[in-house]
Amino acid sequence: MTGRERAVPRVVLHPHRPRGIRAELARLEHDGEIELVVAQDSDEVAAALADGADILASFRWEERYLQPSLRWVASISAGFEQYPLAELERNGVALTTASGVNAIAVAEHAMALLLGCVRRLDAAVMSQADRRWERHGPRLELHGSTMVVAGIGAIGERVAELATGFGMRVLGVKRDPDDYDGCAQRVVGPEELVTVCREADVLVNALPGGEQTKGLISTAVFDALDGGWLISVGRGSVVDEPSLVEALEDGRIRGAGLDVFAGEPLDEGSPLWALPGVLMTAHVGGLSPNYGRRWVELFRRNLAALTGRQPWTNRVT
Amino acid sequence: MTGRERAVPRVVLHPHRPRGIRAELARLEHDGEIELVVAQDSDEVAAALADGADILASFRWEERYLQPSLRWVASISAGFEQYPLAELERNGVALTTASGVNAIAVAEHAMALLLGCVRRLDAAVMSQADRRWERHGPRLELHGSTMVVAGIGAIGERVAELATGFGMRVLGVKRDPDDYDGCAQRVVGPEELVTVCREADVLVNALPGGEQTKGLISTAVFDALDGGWLISVGRGSVVDEPSLVEALEDGRIRGAGLDVFAGEPLDEGSPLWALPGVLMTAHVGGLSPNYGRRWVELFRRNLAALTGRQPWTNRVT
Repeated sequence: MTGRERAVPRVVLHPHRPRGIRAELARLEHDGEIELVVAQDSDEVAAALADGADILASFRWEERYLQPSLRWVASISAGFEQYPLAELERNGVALTTASGVNAIAVAEHAMALLLGCVRRLDAAVMSQADRRWERHGPRLELHGSTMVVAGIGAIGERVAELATGFGMRVLGVKRDPDDYDGCAQRVVGPEELVTVCREADVLVNALPGGEQTKGLISTAVFDALDGGWLISVGRGSVVDEPSLVEALEDGRIRGAGLDVFAGEPLDEGSPLWALPGVLMTAHVGGLSPNYGRRWVELFRRNLAALTGRQPWTNRVT
Repeated sequence: MTGRERAVPRVVLHPHRPRGIRAELARLEHDGEIELVVAQDSDEVAAALADGADILASFRWEERYLQPSLRWVASISAGFEQYPLAELERNGVALTTASGVNAIAVAEHAMALLLGCVRRLDAAVMSQADRRWERHGPRLELHGSTMVVAGIGAIGERVAELATGFGMRVLGVKRDPDDYDGCAQRVVGPEELVTVCREADVLVNALPGGEQTKGLISTAVFDALDGGWLISVGRGSVVDEPSLVEALEDGRIRGAGLDVFAGEPLDEGSPLWALPGVLMTAHVGGLSPNYGRRWVELFRRNLAALTGRQPWTNRVT
């Protein structure tokens, strides 16, 4: 029996997935909305697809997943660099991303890194570990300071909202600034990134990866930031790391809160690990106890789209 | 020449003071609003007051400071336990506190501690120190969670505003809940503290010290918090530390972000230093690069009050 004849679509869930998604999809199966195959490894994914599964929920891709029954790839990632877009298109397979699902979590993480840097939690944690009562005073008050958000999509906008709540002035950088309808005071195009950074105490990288953004945050930006901070939660490739190291070493920027890196895991030899003013986390911004629930909410909306009952969200092909 | 005959009041500034106040007062002197004596030690404070200074800017007090020329003590602290209120009253000396001046800074620190705890920056800093790429996932998303703010004065209200910006539901505890006019969804009296904590993911201690609040946050509160977090930025005496240690040890609460303690500096032997889930700072919440500017703004308003040109702010005696 193929997917097109079956009453409910059969979903195969890739083993490499964030916590929570399995339980939430199991609830949809229990409610009779889907039939769920929880794959233990990639071979089981391929087998289930060869056996007529309609939908792949995954953030990994392999050539052999493209089977005749496959109608929709519901990606668990915000990006889609890993998918063969033209081939999916040619085979009539829909691809949707999880863009926006992690916006709240990443934005909270960006604020955690920013507050951690300026209120010196890194120094506090080290003092605590040695039972030393040492008063590390704050380096910046957010209230009244200026933040530039580079990349003001779902994540960047949420960061802008939170920063506005702290009384920060927020400026945004966006490919099409004229489209903007959010809470930032002013939004400019990428060609003005350096100009707005001259006004900034804090620059937040919330940009996606790709050739267009690669190394965009580099020496000229750090010169302009002069004494400010970088918070990086978008894609690591946006930041030119050798320039960042130089800017931290010579004090052009006072600190950096980094969750993403050009190469991950970050190389053990990178100077970033030990530079004063650097607070880093291992790409955890998008993790959230609510991720599974939010992703499956989006999945349900697109399940309705698959049967023509409502428009698609985040559809790429 | 006594103060009452002089054209501008003479201010003596105590040597123990936050950074920034001296420079801001020097500007007032430059503008001819005051005459400034910057004391190098307590003897110089006493001498300047014996020599006819009108105003003492200080957060310390000594008996010998009470001289006939003293008209106003502009305290640099939010509390006023250190002053002999009846004696100042009897001698017609005004006392004003700095209540509210540090509200923005303390509230930002409270959010730093909260985000640091739930997004596990303590674990991240230790991993970074060892150059280990370890992914410490968050324990709570603020969005959609519930915060109880105990003590919803200037600091508590600012915390409530910031938490509301994160999409938290905020409940408040206040001596006179009927007086409340702020952003918390519901405010109850102290007798309902335990009841509201049953709904809370996070309890923020923003209460002042004193007999009425001593040990208020104790076993019954931790039982009610069940799996939540404590953030303590008010007075340390409000939290019963042995109960806190027990609640952390047996997992009734998942963590604590602590800036204030029953005794400061915290005793080197306290179990709090090393308990998992504890993120601590050494009473730095009120520190801010903007403290001097804000305090002197308040000082200027009260300088106008001293000459009857406007009402007093934060006047105690």
